[in-house]
Amino acid sequence: MRILVLGGDGYCGWATALYLSARNHSVGIVDNLVRREWDSELEVETLTPIRPLSERVAAWHKAAGRSVDVFIGDVTNYDFLCSTLKAWQPDAVVHFAEQRSAPYSMIDLEHAVFTQVNNVVGTLNLLFALHEVCPYCHLVKLGTMGEYGTPNIDIEEGYITIEHNGRRDLLPYPKQPGSFYHLSKVHDSHNIAFTCKTWGMRATDLNQGIVYGTVTDEVALDEALINRFDYDQVFGTVLNRFCAQAAVGYPLTVYGEGGQTRGFLDIRDTVRCIELACTHPAAPGEFRVFNQFTEQFSVLDLARMVQSEGEKLGLKVSIDHLPDPRVEAERHYYNAKHSRLSDLGLQPHLLSDALLDSLMNIAVRYRDRINPAHFQPRVNWRQPRPHVAQRPSRRANALAESLRRVVRDGENGEPISMPSAPTLNRPDAFTDTGRSVLSESDRAESSPHEPAAVKGFPRD
Amino acid sequence: MRILVLGGDGYCGWATALYLSARNHSVGIVDNLVRREWDSELEVETLTPIRPLSERVAAWHKAAGRSVDVFIGDVTNYDFLCSTLKAWQPDAVVHFAEQRSAPYSMIDLEHAVFTQVNNVVGTLNLLFALHEVCPYCHLVKLGTMGEYGTPNIDIEEGYITIEHNGRRDLLPYPKQPGSFYHLSKVHDSHNIAFTCKTWGMRATDLNQGIVYGTVTDEVALDEALINRFDYDQVFGTVLNRFCAQAAVGYPLTVYGEGGQTRGFLDIRDTVRCIELACTHPAAPGEFRVFNQFTEQFSVLDLARMVQSEGEKLGLKVSIDHLPDPRVEAERHYYNAKHSRLSDLGLQPHLLSDALLDSLMNIAVRYRDRINPAHFQPRVNWRQPRPHVAQRPSRRANALAESLRRVVRDGENGEPISMPSAPTLNRPDAFTDTGRSVLSESDRAESSPHEPAAVKGFPRD
Repeated sequence: MRILVLGGDGYCGWATALYLSARNHSVGIVDNLVRREWDSELEVETLTPIRPLSERVAAWHKAAGRSVDVFIGDVTNYDFLCSTLKAWQPDAVVHFAEQRSAPYSMIDLEHAVFTQVNNVVGTLNLLFALHEVCPYCHLVKLGTMGEYGTPNIDIEEGYITIEHNGRRDLLPYPKQPGSFYHLSKVHDSHNIAFTCKTWGMRATDLNQGIVYGTVTDEVALDEALINRFDYDQVFGTVLNRFCAQAAVGYPLTVYGEGGQTRGFLDIRDTVRCIELACTHPAAPGEFRVFNQFTEQFSVLDLARMVQSEGEKLGLKVSIDHLPDPRVEAERHYYNAKHSRLSDLGLQPHLLSDALLDSLMNIAVRYRDRINPAHFQPRVNWRQPRPHVAQRPSRRANALAESLRRVVRDGENGEPISMPSAPTLNRPDAFTDTGRSVLSESDRAESSPHEPAAVKGFPRD
Repeated sequence: MRILVLGGDGYCGWATALYLSARNHSVGIVDNLVRREWDSELEVETLTPIRPLSERVAAWHKAAGRSVDVFIGDVTNYDFLCSTLKAWQPDAVVHFAEQRSAPYSMIDLEHAVFTQVNNVVGTLNLLFALHEVCPYCHLVKLGTMGEYGTPNIDIEEGYITIEHNGRRDLLPYPKQPGSFYHLSKVHDSHNIAFTCKTWGMRATDLNQGIVYGTVTDEVALDEALINRFDYDQVFGTVLNRFCAQAAVGYPLTVYGEGGQTRGFLDIRDTVRCIELACTHPAAPGEFRVFNQFTEQFSVLDLARMVQSEGEKLGLKVSIDHLPDPRVEAERHYYNAKHSRLSDLGLQPHLLSDALLDSLMNIAVRYRDRINPAHFQPRVNWRQPRPHVAQRPSRRANALAESLRRVVRDGENGEPISMPSAPTLNRPDAFTDTGRSVLSESDRAESSPHEPAAVKGFPRD
């Protein structure tokens, strides 16, 4: 299959791109490299020394003999996204290209607005672009188990049958997200469901649990292919952080009681789940939801497992309870279903087997790179950082510019008329804000100005 | 009470501002006047000749002897919004300041993105500004009954108790919105619910049905106070359109079978509901949802009522069924609860009594202003207008500029640190993009630069 991975330079995206490439799919990566900029902003870095994207892709070609196409640009830039889809013609698009940290979204107004605008507009652009350019392409969208919150009933996969006053319906499962980031994913889910119903889009929403681990078979081929391992208070997920803490003899920082229970999965299962979703596509008009995790643990369970495994390596590991910086239940019922990916053939890797190999050993190997100052939670859910007007940055300018290109009210544009057939004057050129790996002359060749009708498709 | 009406120059907002002012509340209006620009964009106009906002407010002062404060600016501009709240110190904020047309949001990518960014960012700004400036202020937010869609079970007011596998929980009612506009309201609802839980905000979400009517007691005092009456295919709601069609002998345009059933209410009930919500505020931390409508009808019911009432006025009224431009069930179960506002004292106006007085007579009086070309639906849910890159307009620039001011990634800003107490250097000045009716010297008086600690409030 031809699979385009949006956000292919990120943690899950990179592992996914290599896995799919190794399994003989044609793989393209779209990324604006912003995840690396967020590290700079926060003054942190991944535990593992990841290489620039072009080096990674070259190393993959050398190690595996397979090419991956790269498109550098932002999915909030509609013209870039649309041109890329038109040029590459994927069978499936895997959409990881969102701001994915809950604490990042809770820093202050700016980060909340950025997270929601970036994620919602990127996904809206993708929906319109798929509808316009390749309506039969299957959208595989990364959601999160955090969309559901912690209800006092079993969590189903996307939908629940409700009986009420003698009647019954199958309805979207109620959502109770716990940060502006998680909210952005709920917004996306609603937007995608609507376009499946209205335009006949085909989409799979993967409500993923918390991913752990760094090493996949592909990444292990060469040190230059190494994947991210985030352990900081903003982007580091809980298990990575615990392993890094254990490696340097820092107490494991459990937030509150530690009874917060969540679904978890090994990154080797993430990549397999993505392939399963791609090779078993949703039907046209179907909005399908899979809960993508393999085991559920409480935070305190994890801390105790890390403590016990650490001791096998001769590490002395203590556990510290901090006041919970988040607003969340610290003890609660949690039982989330996750059978649909198993039904498609997923064979889970279990945490008890992976903890030493894929996590503790990595943390110990790179422990000289750990800065314990990054462990301490500094983003407080109850108290966003006060707003301070300031000069906009380069990236804020870029996002605003993308929106300015999309959002207009017709004053200077063409008159408002809603033609029943596509107009013929759609420009195909790549825009100046999206860099493409194609050269100027390539662009002229691959995206000539041509009547849209030639590439038209039935819209109803 | 001191009540600030965001969007007070719009259809519901204007009627609400005057009603609250007549009932001896102190009223402020915040509006960027953009609703009038959308008429220009679409080349349509309200049936009724509305006056500029400053004339309206002056006419109200003359007719009723009461002042209304006016702040011209955009709620997507955080500094403007925050300064206004700080200067005016409302007890309640009524938030009508959103793009509220489903067809407008479905025109094309630009209008979809504009609607969601404008509505979501405006509401996020408001939540942060209230939290920062007046955390005890009650937010009264206009949602829509369209958030629920048409489930096959009874619609409750915001929440539903679900029994599932032997357990039970009270959860948010599942949402199935039917346009990018309705989706934006669902996004808002989730964002607001989260801040009530996390920051202890107090909010009432009014899921309003379709409003009809133009004349309220206040508006009737002077022709210069007249309210909007939209009958066009984009902003005109169904009953207004039918009355305008009847007035000029044009067939009533029923979309599809006409079995689409919705909740409706008279604008005189809208204004009363708003007052009831304001004078009976939600508790701190409470996210309260009221379904705000009084009767439910199918579209065909309405067409037949207009036909029958039109004939009493000597009009010959026929009914035409057009292919439904929307994607929606044309026949379905519909039973939506709406008792919470009645419990607070709402005495509904019934459509059967209002149809002649408030609607048909207005349509007939101004029928020379009706352009039947505006009746025909041209926005097709299944087929958005293709994307055409074009020069951004003045308003697109303004929205992008507002976002640029808010969204930044810290490159040029202050270092990322999350202080545990408010910093003291928050600038209080109004910004240059929000015009205020206060003069420069007024500003200095009402918003002196003072340490935030003086106006500090407990944040946890």
